[in-house]
Amino acid sequence: MGIRELDEIFGGGLPIPSTLLILGDIGTGKSVLCQQFIYAQAKKGYECTYFCIDNSPSDVRMNMISLGWDPTELEEKGLIKFVDIFIGREETSDEKYQGNARNFDELVPTVKKFFLQNQRFVIDSISSVAFLHGEDKAYDLIQRVQGWILNTRSVGIVNAVRGMHSKTFEIAIQQALGNVIILEKDEETDSVYLRIAKTTKTSHMRGKFGLEIDESGIRIMH
Amino acid sequence: MGIRELDEIFGGGLPIPSTLLILGDIGTGKSVLCQQFIYAQAKKGYECTYFCIDNSPSDVRMNMISLGWDPTELEEKGLIKFVDIFIGREETSDEKYQGNARNFDELVPTVKKFFLQNQRFVIDSISSVAFLHGEDKAYDLIQRVQGWILNTRSVGIVNAVRGMHSKTFEIAIQQALGNVIILEKDEETDSVYLRIAKTTKTSHMRGKFGLEIDESGIRIMH
Amino acid sequence: MGIRELDEIFGGGLPIPSTLLILGDIGTGKSVLCQQFIYAQAKKGYECTYFCIDNSPSDVRMNMISLGWDPTELEEKGLIKFVDIFIGREETSDEKYQGNARNFDELVPTVKKFFLQNQRFVIDSISSVAFLHGEDKAYDLIQRVQGWILNTRSVGIVNAVRGMHSKTFEIAIQQALGNVIILEKDEETDSVYLRIAKTTKTSHMRGKFGLEIDESGIRIMH
Amino acid sequence: MGIRELDEIFGGGLPIPSTLLILGDIGTGKSVLCQQFIYAQAKKGYECTYFCIDNSPSDVRMNMISLGWDPTELEEKGLIKFVDIFIGREETSDEKYQGNARNFDELVPTVKKFFLQNQRFVIDSISSVAFLHGEDKAYDLIQRVQGWILNTRSVGIVNAVRGMHSKTFEIAIQQALGNVIILEKDEETDSVYLRIAKTTKTSHMRGKFGLEIDESGIRIMH
Amino acid sequence: MGIRELDEIFGGGLPIPSTLLILGDIGTGKSVLCQQFIYAQAKKGYECTYFCIDNSPSDVRMNMISLGWDPTELEEKGLIKFVDIFIGREETSDEKYQGNARNFDELVPTVKKFFLQNQRFVIDSISSVAFLHGEDKAYDLIQRVQGWILNTRSVGIVNAVRGMHSKTFEIAIQQALGNVIILEKDEETDSVYLRIAKTTKTSHMRGKFGLEIDESGIRIMH
Amino acid sequence: MGIRELDEIFGGGLPIPSTLLILGDIGTGKSVLCQQFIYAQAKKGYECTYFCIDNSPSDVRMNMISLGWDPTELEEKGLIKFVDIFIGREETSDEKYQGNARNFDELVPTVKKFFLQNQRFVIDSISSVAFLHGEDKAYDLIQRVQGWILNTRSVGIVNAVRGMHSKTFEIAIQQALGNVIILEKDEETDSVYLRIAKTTKTSHMRGKFGLEIDESGIRIMH
Repeated sequence: MGIRELDEIFGGGLPIPSTLLILGDIGTGKSVLCQQFIYAQAKKGYECTYFCIDNSPSDVRMNMISLGWDPTELEEKGLIKFVDIFIGREETSDEKYQGNARNFDELVPTVKKFFLQNQRFVIDSISSVAFLHGEDKAYDLIQRVQGWILNTRSVGIVNAVRGMHSKTFEIAIQQALGNVIILEKDEETDSVYLRIAKTTKTSHMRGKFGLEIDESGIRIMH
Repeated sequence: MGIRELDEIFGGGLPIPSTLLILGDIGTGKSVLCQQFIYAQAKKGYECTYFCIDNSPSDVRMNMISLGWDPTELEEKGLIKFVDIFIGREETSDEKYQGNARNFDELVPTVKKFFLQNQRFVIDSISSVAFLHGEDKAYDLIQRVQGWILNTRSVGIVNAVRGMHSKTFEIAIQQALGNVIILEKDEETDSVYLRIAKTTKTSHMRGKFGLEIDESGIRIMH
Repeated sequence: MGIRELDEIFGGGLPIPSTLLILGDIGTGKSVLCQQFIYAQAKKGYECTYFCIDNSPSDVRMNMISLGWDPTELEEKGLIKFVDIFIGREETSDEKYQGNARNFDELVPTVKKFFLQNQRFVIDSISSVAFLHGEDKAYDLIQRVQGWILNTRSVGIVNAVRGMHSKTFEIAIQQALGNVIILEKDEETDSVYLRIAKTTKTSHMRGKFGLEIDESGIRIMH
Repeated sequence: MGIRELDEIFGGGLPIPSTLLILGDIGTGKSVLCQQFIYAQAKKGYECTYFCIDNSPSDVRMNMISLGWDPTELEEKGLIKFVDIFIGREETSDEKYQGNARNFDELVPTVKKFFLQNQRFVIDSISSVAFLHGEDKAYDLIQRVQGWILNTRSVGIVNAVRGMHSKTFEIAIQQALGNVIILEKDEETDSVYLRIAKTTKTSHMRGKFGLEIDESGIRIMH
Repeated sequence: MGIRELDEIFGGGLPIPSTLLILGDIGTGKSVLCQQFIYAQAKKGYECTYFCIDNSPSDVRMNMISLGWDPTELEEKGLIKFVDIFIGREETSDEKYQGNARNFDELVPTVKKFFLQNQRFVIDSISSVAFLHGEDKAYDLIQRVQGWILNTRSVGIVNAVRGMHSKTFEIAIQQALGNVIILEKDEETDSVYLRIAKTTKTSHMRGKFGLEIDESGIRIMH
Repeated sequence: MGIRELDEIFGGGLPIPSTLLILGDIGTGKSVLCQQFIYAQAKKGYECTYFCIDNSPSDVRMNMISLGWDPTELEEKGLIKFVDIFIGREETSDEKYQGNARNFDELVPTVKKFFLQNQRFVIDSISSVAFLHGEDKAYDLIQRVQGWILNTRSVGIVNAVRGMHSKTFEIAIQQALGNVIILEKDEETDSVYLRIAKTTKTSHMRGKFGLEIDESGIRIMH
């Protein structure tokens, strides 16, 4: 994945094709993990798509730059595409790649169109789709993604916010996707922990790990 | 069942006809148990059907091969049929046996048609049916399965994900099916435990057992 | 009731007419208690009806035989009638006595017709009726049963699965029926306990009792 | 109230007009309290109505006789009227006073007609009305009762089953009625406790009291 | 407010205009506080309206007299108006001031009409309005009251029953009104505590206070 | 932000553009924080809008004056606009800036119109919008605000009441907005604590801080 410790956890990276679900509390660095992933993969030459749903592409770019992962060059080479399906946007975007997240019937073909072209992807996040359009629609989209990756043989991450959904939905998306990590925040100490909930490969790492996010990205504590 | 310890637990195997419900937490090896069962039964010469709902047949085959249970030869002999009713699929499948899990009215006759031909079966899982079509529809399907096995005198496993349903549904399917085992995950230690919730035969084994899943399948710890 | 310890608990048996509600966890021997009751009563010469809802009559007969209570002779004498209203059945039954549990409007007159002929009865269980047709319909049926026994002066058992319903329904059926016992399962030790929740007669026995089920039926531990 | 300890609790009896709500767990003797009340009041010469909703009048009479409170003579003198609005009844009753509890629009005028004639009353129970017709309808009936007693200046008891309703309904009926006692069952020890939740008069008794029910009725332990 | 300790708590009385929400458990003296307030204010010469919703005006008068606050003279002087919008009433009231609480569309203009004339008011209670007409309607009425007091510059109390509503409604009405006190009942000891949840003025009193209600009204323990 | 300690927490102030969500218990000083913010920003010359939803502008002005932040002069200079969308108001307001919060379809363009003119804003609060119009509508408005600030490059605060919404909504708005602080009230000690739940910038301050509100505004305890 380009993140050394996660590669270790998943025994040398995620299988191809596969999806990793990151289910994390508010403020635990879910998006940072996604951005680190997409940057590392594009650097290796893979065609990557970042579906920007909860934030605008400009916010995502700004954040990546502040973490030292300037995507400008990779965008010019066509290795990173930011698809603007930001749900706060009311009008047409200035972005090259865009769609309308506020209309579910438009959203599915938009995601599919860009999806079928990529090798690596990030959906950030499925949670606002579930909140806006209902959990059954979001579950349906997740299942389609699982179908699409069989054709594209791509690898990617789906972000979801823990606590923003019914318990049954949170388990349903874990069942639907092959690999799941949980990011928990301890409100007392303000610390973040990573837990592996599910892997398709056998993993020899178990339990919880501390997580640090700073200017150089995510680091896992042993 | 072809799994030595489960055979012990159920006093020499499941009665004929009967169904075993595996109700398990995310990441506890429910599908591995099913695959071990279907492989062992086909090896003994029984005609087996694996209803692939949550994953595509190719994923199931790949996983079986990685565990050392290559189904290719058994498929050629007609002893294992993978029925592709994967809910993530949008178009017609390339598989020989298939159906459409996204339309409940098509799903029931599809399952019935293949069901009436088999001697051993796996439904993996009923949970996505419940999530997609509602718990009352999934309960109805479970009840029909109970009716069908009276005619076919077959034996099989139904998989369900613990926590993905209302509590009443989780108890209703335990009431509907004759034998139930629970797979629990202890999140702190990342260990998996097996508990026998219900048997039609009298069992002399009680309580919880540790469970290990590795390259050679499931092993129960005493 | 033909079960020595329950007779003690209810001060020499249940009053005539009356109904006993058995509200029990999964796998606590509810049906075994019912079968022991119906066998003992038929042996004494009472006309008994066993409404088979959750399981087919053939399953119930097989189970009774395995416990040493072969009903064949009693059926021939007309002392035990198994009414096949198994909810898993899709077509007409081969059984002599039958009805359709999948249609509530047919179910009520079917139950009533057989009910008005009996002296002892078992309804096994009301829970699947509640799950399939709604709790208000199942409550309505329970209330009608309470009306019918005033005319028939019969005595019988209604089975219900604890945890398969809303809490309000579980209390409502306890309020509706005159006598209630609870069967609890301790998941840690796998032990079963019996508790008397309500009696119409004054009982001098209080608290919880251990319960054993083996080849000779139910035994209560003191 | 004719029950010495309750009279003490309510400082010499309930005010006129007023209603006492008994909100009690299953099997805590709610109906026994009502029957003791109606018998004592009729003995003093008051015209009493017992609205039989959860049980038939014959059940209530049988129970009163078993407790030593034979109502026959008082019924002949017209001091006790049992109104048969038993919800389990399907046809016309043989009782002199009757109505149909299964149709709410008939139920209200029936209750009102008999209500406006009495001086003492028991409604046993409001819970089945709430379960059958909805909590808003039952609340509406309770409020009307509060209006009617202003005209009749009568005193009586309304029975309700604790746990059979939403929490908001259980509090709403306590708010609606002037005096409330709670009967709690301790499942561990099988003991019953009485607690005064609300009085219109100032009471000098506080806290919980043990309760014994035997052949001579209810006794409060100090 | 005419209640010495509450005046202290609110730093010399409530600001003008403002509303105090009393959110209290069953049987904690909410109505007694309201009656003490209205009596004290009328004595000082303010025009007061008591909206009688949960009880009839005659019940309220009777209760006030029993506490030594006979309102007769103040009613004659026009300083206290009891508006009969008792929800248990079916027909026209004999009271001079009245309305129909059973029809929300009539209720709002009735309350408004009397509201715009007063200087002090009590709404006893908003809870039955919420139960009868829904929490959104009751919230709407509360918000209108907040608008009306800007014009009338009046001061008053709104009563609400704790536990009779959804948690979100209980917080919403605290947010809507400027001052909130909570009356809690400790069921074990049967004691009542007062807690200040919110004030518009800065208060130097914090925490919980014991509360005593006897023949001379409410007293706060320090 | 003009509040020294918050500036420290957010590493020298909030980024431009951005929104701070204050999610606080009843009576924890949410509005005081907003008023301190708007006063400080207007003093620095920024054009500020205060959307008055839960309280009328006159209430907000009165409160600011009592805290020593008289907005009169700043209003005259056009640096502070109070927009009267108070939900308790039934008729047209006397205020210069106004709208109708009771009609969601009018509310959105009203907020947008004033929004596109400002540099600093306060929405006090989103909670009553959610309660009145539903959580999905309020979520939609929050998302639009996130879109608008990209154009206006403005900075502001959205207030929300903790406990007045579903848990999923409370998490959804935290996910939607870039910076979140939680104000908790300890009911036992009546103390208020501030916790940083989420920041876009890296913060070196962690955990909980005590909070004091008095005549000079909010102070954070170390």
